[in-house]
Amino acid sequence: MGKVTATYLVHDKKGNLNKKAEDIALGLTVGSWTNLPQLEKDQLEKHKGTVESVTELESDSAADQYLGSSRTKGLLKISYPAANFSPDLPAILTTVFGKLSLDGEIKLVDLELGKSLAQQFPGPKFGVDGIREKLDVYNRPLVMSIFKGVLGKDLEFFKEQLRQQSLGGVDLVKDDEILFENPLTPFEERITAAKQVLSETETITGEKTLYAVNLTGRSRNLRDKARRAVELGANALLFNVLSYGPDILQELAEDKEISVPIMAHPALAGAAGSSALYGISYSVLLGKILRWSGADLGLFPSPYGSVALKREEALGISNALTEESAVHRAAFPVPSAGIHPGLVPQLFSDFGINSVINAGGGIHGHPDGAAGGARAFRQAVDAAVSGVSLDVAALTNKELGTALELWGGVAAK
Amino acid sequence: MGKVTATYLVHDKKGNLNKKAEDIALGLTVGSWTNLPQLEKDQLEKHKGTVESVTELESDSAADQYLGSSRTKGLLKISYPAANFSPDLPAILTTVFGKLSLDGEIKLVDLELGKSLAQQFPGPKFGVDGIREKLDVYNRPLVMSIFKGVLGKDLEFFKEQLRQQSLGGVDLVKDDEILFENPLTPFEERITAAKQVLSETETITGEKTLYAVNLTGRSRNLRDKARRAVELGANALLFNVLSYGPDILQELAEDKEISVPIMAHPALAGAAGSSALYGISYSVLLGKILRWSGADLGLFPSPYGSVALKREEALGISNALTEESAVHRAAFPVPSAGIHPGLVPQLFSDFGINSVINAGGGIHGHPDGAAGGARAFRQAVDAAVSGVSLDVAALTNKELGTALELWGGVAAK
Ligand SMILES: [Mg+2]
Ligand SMILES: [Mg+2]
Repeated sequence: MGKVTATYLVHDKKGNLNKKAEDIALGLTVGSWTNLPQLEKDQLEKHKGTVESVTELESDSAADQYLGSSRTKGLLKISYPAANFSPDLPAILTTVFGKLSLDGEIKLVDLELGKSLAQQFPGPKFGVDGIREKLDVYNRPLVMSIFKGVLGKDLEFFKEQLRQQSLGGVDLVKDDEILFENPLTPFEERITAAKQVLSETETITGEKTLYAVNLTGRSRNLRDKARRAVELGANALLFNVLSYGPDILQELAEDKEISVPIMAHPALAGAAGSSALYGISYSVLLGKILRWSGADLGLFPSPYGSVALKREEALGISNALTEESAVHRAAFPVPSAGIHPGLVPQLFSDFGINSVINAGGGIHGHPDGAAGGARAFRQAVDAAVSGVSLDVAALTNKELGTALELWGGVAAK
Repeated sequence: MGKVTATYLVHDKKGNLNKKAEDIALGLTVGSWTNLPQLEKDQLEKHKGTVESVTELESDSAADQYLGSSRTKGLLKISYPAANFSPDLPAILTTVFGKLSLDGEIKLVDLELGKSLAQQFPGPKFGVDGIREKLDVYNRPLVMSIFKGVLGKDLEFFKEQLRQQSLGGVDLVKDDEILFENPLTPFEERITAAKQVLSETETITGEKTLYAVNLTGRSRNLRDKARRAVELGANALLFNVLSYGPDILQELAEDKEISVPIMAHPALAGAAGSSALYGISYSVLLGKILRWSGADLGLFPSPYGSVALKREEALGISNALTEESAVHRAAFPVPSAGIHPGLVPQLFSDFGINSVINAGGGIHGHPDGAAGGARAFRQAVDAAVSGVSLDVAALTNKELGTALELWGGVAAK
């Protein structure tokens, strides 16, 4: 039959975690149990939630003080029979964390799908291997950059910025997530312009570049808009998935005609992910759910920028996107924000070869321009993969040297 | 041109709220400003965000202690030109709280649309007035109840429960939000069974009852499923909007063939709404956004149950659903959870005549069954509206007396 298993972190007022777990397992399924007649128990048995485990954790005095009372902190692991819901994320999320999300200090910190349930979800259409094939790049982390300041600028500006980034050797370029439909750089024109620019740069560099165009607008139009993008030659899509809902990402991922990788942006994720007491952990929100729904690349704040996640949270997302699965392809983790070439050894050590090194200011702010910035990243990546220190690599790599002078270098911990 | 104005509550590390506000207003729009050449300033002026106000609040020592450093607490009000985004909620939310939601201690506490922008959103198709017309009930709060324990039970069970609730005089009955497509009580069969039961009870009571069937499944099927529901005679829909995204609710509300009220369930709302430091305030999440998107009724935890909101949060949602608007109809606030007849005077005093009194256990747990429970609620509502105390009303209203004995009575504060 299958089941979904949720793990909750609670700071409980009443001090009885076993009772709390039992209340959840029953309250979100059959309602009550002990006093039911046997006939009803037989009828409801297959719908009953199960307490899988209850683990009391060391109490957290900072949280207790903040909450104004002494709490029992613990992890409750509860499973819900798949017979209770339809195999879609809105139903699953409503089941495991619908009403419960409103019930005091409770955070959804893990979610596991039984195999038959997992098979209802597409996972990445391309994922790590498929994107590597498209780019013909196998032995290093990918390098990605972000357009900067396109809002209010025209298509020539857009094309020149794309050209420079691509000439410098980035593997992927993404739209800014706040670039929507607009008269200066319309969606379809960005796609055709990018196609032309990138085929030109490929003849010069011999390397492919993917451009992720921001897929935006009303939900009902997204599928056709994405299909049209592919027809026009788009080779990747950027998608603000959490502003729509994961089921919409899944619909895009399931559509065979949308035959390009989808890059999931973490916009809005902080609303549910930031608190230690409430919400949904980033590894679930930006890791598991987005991988199940079909994100080929998942962006999230790196631990090293001004907008930063805790290192264990960033690693948690990365792990969820890439861990072994019999059902789903691995997606590329894309730690973002505050990245400069000096951080590459640390990122390589944290996120491994199957990750994307993504920069905005660290590309565009390079004294040799975006092309120079991109070259500096490629040089840093080559050094990290070969186990050469950046300082040594900088001796023979001018742009890397310039970058290290400007931003410094950080040895991997 | 129009704009959207967002208000953020911040607990800022750096102690310069004006700079933080300026950084947001620029960072989420044109990127930078002061050092731009005049030509670029002219080009970008219409895209530039504006700091509308900055208000420092008294520092919050409990939060400071919890966060481990002294913070500057304040409200930042920032407006974003409508030229920057398409007029849809995914674009607006990504603009005002996309990346920003990940940026430390920041909570989106208000959101205002300029009039021309507001007009892009449908608002409730029926709202308070339209639902009152459907029910032909004008001079009191409505009474609503929830099915209990339908999971695993058959259609006869469902029909009998509906019959009892309707005979007792509830105005609306809703599915449990965790009832999904299932073989015992399939969606279409619930609708046709309810239609039959409710036309029978109407001949007995002379009163109409609306049944809100839970609209669930994959996003792409919802519109046709809702249209089919209406064809089959459904007279209301329940929708777990936050598990899909508000744009999907908007699509349902905009569809002329879906000619029934939509009831928005708050499932998942706690994930973004619970924290005082992060996320999105309930008045925005369950109030403004759902009203703009077209919810006719908005459920939220009452301040009086075990799953409870703070009173000011519940009132904030209610106010957002009902406040005067030149653009959108008012939606019914539906404070829920933990409601028994003894609370009716307090609920009437809190939420006024244009609200729905919604109960589960307070209906089904009545010693005279669901019909008796419903009668007790109607008696309490009549008393509250007439300014008669429940104790006095109980002298001539048996079911109310029984309810007060069981659950007690609470005088309005
Ligand atoms: Mg950006
Ligand atoms: Mg319920």
